[in-house]
Amino acid sequence: MTTTKDAHKSKLIGTSPVRPDGAGKVTGEAIFAADVSLPGMLHGKILRSPHAHARIKSIDASEALKLPGVRAIATHQDFPPIPSNLKVDSGEYMTLRDLRDRVLASNKVLFKGHPVAGIVADNAHIAEEAMAKIKVEYEVLKSVTDVRTALKKDAPVLHDKLNSISRNSKLEQVSPNGLIIKADSGNVEQGFKECDVVIEREFTTQTVHQGYIEPQATVVDYLSDGSIVCHSCTQGTFRYREHISDILQIPQHKIKIVPTEIGGGFGGKEVAYLEPIAAILSKKTQRPVKIVMSRADVFQGTGPASGSWMKVKIGAKKDGKLHAAQMTLAYEGGAWPGSPVSGGASIGLGRYNIPNQLIEGYDVVLNKPATQPYRAPGATQIHFATETIIDEIAEKLGIDPVEFRMINTVREGDRNVQGVPFQRIGSTQVLEAIKNSEHYKSPLGGPNRGRGFAFGFWRGGGGQSSCNISVHPDGTVSMLEGSPDLSGTRTAIAMIAADTLGIPLTNVKIAVGDTDSVGYSMGSWGSRTTFATGLASYEAATDLNKKMTARAAKIWETTPDNVENSDGEFRHKSDSALKITFAHLAEKLNSTGGPIMGYGLVDPARGVGACFCANLVDVEVDPETGKVTILRFTTAQDVGRAIHKALVEGQMQGGVVQGIGWALNEEYVFDQNGNMSNPTFLDYRMPVALDVPMIESIVVEVFNPSHPYGVRGVGEDSITTPPGAIANAIYRATGVRMEKLPMSPTNIMEAMNKQKGRKN
Amino acid sequence: MTTTKDAHKSKLIGTSPVRPDGAGKVTGEAIFAADVSLPGMLHGKILRSPHAHARIKSIDASEALKLPGVRAIATHQDFPPIPSNLKVDSGEYMTLRDLRDRVLASNKVLFKGHPVAGIVADNAHIAEEAMAKIKVEYEVLKSVTDVRTALKKDAPVLHDKLNSISRNSKLEQVSPNGLIIKADSGNVEQGFKECDVVIEREFTTQTVHQGYIEPQATVVDYLSDGSIVCHSCTQGTFRYREHISDILQIPQHKIKIVPTEIGGGFGGKEVAYLEPIAAILSKKTQRPVKIVMSRADVFQGTGPASGSWMKVKIGAKKDGKLHAAQMTLAYEGGAWPGSPVSGGASIGLGRYNIPNQLIEGYDVVLNKPATQPYRAPGATQIHFATETIIDEIAEKLGIDPVEFRMINTVREGDRNVQGVPFQRIGSTQVLEAIKNSEHYKSPLGGPNRGRGFAFGFWRGGGGQSSCNISVHPDGTVSMLEGSPDLSGTRTAIAMIAADTLGIPLTNVKIAVGDTDSVGYSMGSWGSRTTFATGLASYEAATDLNKKMTARAAKIWETTPDNVENSDGEFRHKSDSALKITFAHLAEKLNSTGGPIMGYGLVDPARGVGACFCANLVDVEVDPETGKVTILRFTTAQDVGRAIHKALVEGQMQGGVVQGIGWALNEEYVFDQNGNMSNPTFLDYRMPVALDVPMIESIVVEVFNPSHPYGVRGVGEDSITTPPGAIANAIYRATGVRMEKLPMSPTNIMEAMNKQKGRKN
Repeated sequence: MTTTKDAHKSKLIGTSPVRPDGAGKVTGEAIFAADVSLPGMLHGKILRSPHAHARIKSIDASEALKLPGVRAIATHQDFPPIPSNLKVDSGEYMTLRDLRDRVLASNKVLFKGHPVAGIVADNAHIAEEAMAKIKVEYEVLKSVTDVRTALKKDAPVLHDKLNSISRNSKLEQVSPNGLIIKADSGNVEQGFKECDVVIEREFTTQTVHQGYIEPQATVVDYLSDGSIVCHSCTQGTFRYREHISDILQIPQHKIKIVPTEIGGGFGGKEVAYLEPIAAILSKKTQRPVKIVMSRADVFQGTGPASGSWMKVKIGAKKDGKLHAAQMTLAYEGGAWPGSPVSGGASIGLGRYNIPNQLIEGYDVVLNKPATQPYRAPGATQIHFATETIIDEIAEKLGIDPVEFRMINTVREGDRNVQGVPFQRIGSTQVLEAIKNSEHYKSPLGGPNRGRGFAFGFWRGGGGQSSCNISVHPDGTVSMLEGSPDLSGTRTAIAMIAADTLGIPLTNVKIAVGDTDSVGYSMGSWGSRTTFATGLASYEAATDLNKKMTARAAKIWETTPDNVENSDGEFRHKSDSALKITFAHLAEKLNSTGGPIMGYGLVDPARGVGACFCANLVDVEVDPETGKVTILRFTTAQDVGRAIHKALVEGQMQGGVVQGIGWALNEEYVFDQNGNMSNPTFLDYRMPVALDVPMIESIVVEVFNPSHPYGVRGVGEDSITTPPGAIANAIYRATGVRMEKLPMSPTNIMEAMNKQKGRKN
Repeated sequence: MTTTKDAHKSKLIGTSPVRPDGAGKVTGEAIFAADVSLPGMLHGKILRSPHAHARIKSIDASEALKLPGVRAIATHQDFPPIPSNLKVDSGEYMTLRDLRDRVLASNKVLFKGHPVAGIVADNAHIAEEAMAKIKVEYEVLKSVTDVRTALKKDAPVLHDKLNSISRNSKLEQVSPNGLIIKADSGNVEQGFKECDVVIEREFTTQTVHQGYIEPQATVVDYLSDGSIVCHSCTQGTFRYREHISDILQIPQHKIKIVPTEIGGGFGGKEVAYLEPIAAILSKKTQRPVKIVMSRADVFQGTGPASGSWMKVKIGAKKDGKLHAAQMTLAYEGGAWPGSPVSGGASIGLGRYNIPNQLIEGYDVVLNKPATQPYRAPGATQIHFATETIIDEIAEKLGIDPVEFRMINTVREGDRNVQGVPFQRIGSTQVLEAIKNSEHYKSPLGGPNRGRGFAFGFWRGGGGQSSCNISVHPDGTVSMLEGSPDLSGTRTAIAMIAADTLGIPLTNVKIAVGDTDSVGYSMGSWGSRTTFATGLASYEAATDLNKKMTARAAKIWETTPDNVENSDGEFRHKSDSALKITFAHLAEKLNSTGGPIMGYGLVDPARGVGACFCANLVDVEVDPETGKVTILRFTTAQDVGRAIHKALVEGQMQGGVVQGIGWALNEEYVFDQNGNMSNPTFLDYRMPVALDVPMIESIVVEVFNPSHPYGVRGVGEDSITTPPGAIANAIYRATGVRMEKLPMSPTNIMEAMNKQKGRKN
């Protein structure tokens, strides 16, 4: 473990205390959205399109509504008119028209599973039965589910015009289903001419799903004063509020999003699919409405990660320096624009200094569900491509793959793709950590085995976060923070407050506040939660300390600058007899001027702290079947400063395992009509505990100078590297350079046979 | 209407906009505690003592626990040991030992209805059935339910020692069941000698109940991490938290009290009766537990207002000036000390200047439920006594009753009983308002009719309150305040914020926060809510305006002192082109530095603003039956400044109608064994709409200089005067001076017959 000298000193930070959500989750007490039950509650179901592409000619619900116990249906017709003075949410990349169409189809269905109507009944069984009685007349259209086919001029066209309002980049429409983004630096043509080694390959990756264990669920109560309360599993309560406000044209203060516990999100629970429908049904019935997705709904009706096609060409000089790169990326947006291609384009080679680059990225519309972010969105695809090519270049130049990255990686002061110099970063420390690992030094042994390496980079995110701390008369405190707890983030946020206040963690109660209880907070995504909401926690605790100091000063009839505060004690600077603990001062608040709260509202636009990771993996490939067994897996990651050690390791391990899923097994399988053939966890194969060894985690700590606790976002980077590392290991085991994900037995056998064909 | 010139100017303040809780309450959507339903919830019942006084020899629940569906029982044995370093809540007047005994009896039961055990089962019917199977062996003791009998040396003794920790005064034990408080000023003996008229009478009032429409209810979930969540109807969430924390020895941050809508309290929902029992049962069963009281439970198991015996002697000089007063008050504390006798003693003649006074107050323990505050606690009893005697003195001196009060009332600068000079007060303005009323000038007409007048005083309360305001990107705001909404107080609190921010009230969403979401806040009692929490609202809105001003300055690249803010607009002082509305600035917050919240945490220890009221009432008394019909009723009250006009009038009218209940009908009827004979609304007769005319309200506004909006507490004063005013009217109609409440037909006939006996 590498720790810089200015890492914050603390007995608490860096330990792994019991999580406050732990007991509830293991006993089943924890309330997830599907557990919420309100008096008089009705149950809704969503009727979804059986076609990948069709025109809706009519919807006739009359027979369904006759069924006893059926209460109401909702269709696109129930949305209010789009206002002329429409404001577009800066955090959203879709127009309101598209946003509404995603929730309930208007004139066309654009993917299998596209919601067509909501129906609500006394119980879920009646609603299910009623669904079958809704008659929808479709004119089936030709569909397209392949990203390269979709870009062709003669492909089926989904939209008259593509609306892209990406916050990152302006994308330009170049074909009926395609938008393009371009970026370049240096002179790529000349650059390649100057290279000694140039490798070019084409890659494909498949549509994969975040695979969170908890399907989307909501309970919505539309009240008679026109306000609504939503109990939802969401990564971003305020984002959901914005969606519902925009779609239903309800002012934001009339919408309260109550976050429930959440069974995973990974980027997939950032948009409100069910809530607007449930709200319409609740308004019509004047009863609370619950809607819970099935697993098939989740696969077919929510947003998976983009499948992609990528053509990547990279060149280096003899001295081992990367010199030129060209990438053409086509990422699936799904039924509307919105792929993370601009992220993939900017992050794709961001960990290396390459003077000459040309990147073209296509955001491609096709008859699949609208894609959503999935952990380091856009990065896993391009890391697979670039890390295998770079491995190949290093091999051709005869340079050790880790050493090759050491030569080329960005360091403090180097400029990122936006031209901003990197602050202190842990790129070389991560590489060193792998080189120094027991795994790196150990022999591989055995036939059909290979060891692969890959290097990853993610920039993380900042954004607005809020936190309140209230002191109780017995010296305990309650905190509310605004970012839903994914993976135990509220533990780390509470630890920061406890450490700042100098009180035991067990005296801190933390909860995620609803949208009425805390200030505006961005959701838990973009590796931002412990970084930004942790900063809000620090600010709130600091504010509280300041106010408590002032109160101690008031009691001692002095000025606050005569009172010092540390480790949960307040001391008069010039009278050593005058000192008081946090708890004793808390007891006196109500009799010395009233209650005190501390607040943190932050917007750390900069200083997020780029995050680097590296993987070393040993595999064995069965030459008869192509089955890959992961023998050993080590991941090293610069986390800045681990607040809760076990949670950080869990993030690293979880991301790796998801990356292994991308690498080896996961894919949406579509038939020729655009129907997904495998919308269950039996057929869509995610890694389970039996499939992977214990992931060895090396926590590297290069203090982020822009955060009081040195935190960097750690949630996403870990998924970027496994496909490349495993592909490189497979190459070493088989001699085959894989160009396709997943590297399933079928695909490996195909590649091995092709290779044999070449050799023979 | 009288308004001082410095009353705050506003288009909103003083109007009567729609209440945010209105729609929910009329449609039935509003969630009261009994409406809360959690997954897996069990249902509890409380087994109560059938005896007024008995020793518990044994409790055998074995048969009850055998009943299918019965889950657990709770008795006093389940309480944790009382810690040696016990801290006593300063807001509470009982020791922890007594507090626990009130929740569940230990070795003795002290009143009929005293909880002995809690039992929890799959549904309420099973719990009910199981209750009958719990075998409790009692040794029945002699009981006492009359306040004067209880004071006698040979009365049954309830406690070995009386523990009084009254926050207002030190009370001294003078008899086995009695504590005493004394106060005097001047020389009362000499004073009476100097008087020209002296009247002395004895009065009795009965035990009466607040009669809130919603019985106590709670749902408590004891979670496996040792924390609990209580959904409760309570007037004070933080008080409930303190009770539960103390009784169960759980740190405060582990207890979350979620306030539900509340169907009235009037002082009766300030202590946690059910929550500690439900928590024990929830802990034992690991399931949420709901307990809902029946009406009989409410009458017999919660705290009514003290019955009393009072001996009052007042003297005046010929010039009409009150000169001496002596009062002996004996107020029921119920089964433990805790009557409001010290309040009655200090408030009893507080509206008059009387140089010589001697007051003795007894807090009397007897076999009735522990009394609780009831709207102006202690004041209604003593106002009945003093206002009838003063009416009699005025009559004897031949001075108009209103004029007589005008001569004697306190004015600005006069000192109150604590010796503190009154600030600006509306005593004379209230009297003027009655004199100027159409009612006062109208003829009475008809036989058996009388017109009565009475004058009232209440001091109100301050204390800690908290408020948070969060701004949403569309310019709407959400507020959380910490005092439960009794009678629509959250509307007035929201109006103050809307007015201070200069935004429409409809853009303000207000809710009562749970104990984790807002700062420490005292409950909604003591006429404090709109005064103190309204002040917190003003402070929060002012804080928000200040931060918004700073943000506008940041955007305009100037300093905050160059930006002015009024009526919801921010303007650059020296560049008239630069101005921005609240809503447009709100939209820019997230892109210019992050979210903003405003906070108000206050402790207005002083400046509450004493409140005066006066009643004029016309009655007709049926000489055959003694039935009193209220023909017309006018009440005038100085409210400082009415924030929500209709709510203020509602407070005035509601208090008057409750006072009419005290005056004419309400009383606990006990048999010789201490059993209440009338624990239903059929037999305990409260006034209904048919019993009373429209109460005419004259809102007098004498701006309270200690509040930014001039607010005085208005909730309590209105109940103090009706018994006296009606007694005086009955006297004018019948020639009988009533000395007993209620002035029911029976009591009036008895008094009239006695009078006839005297005359004949």
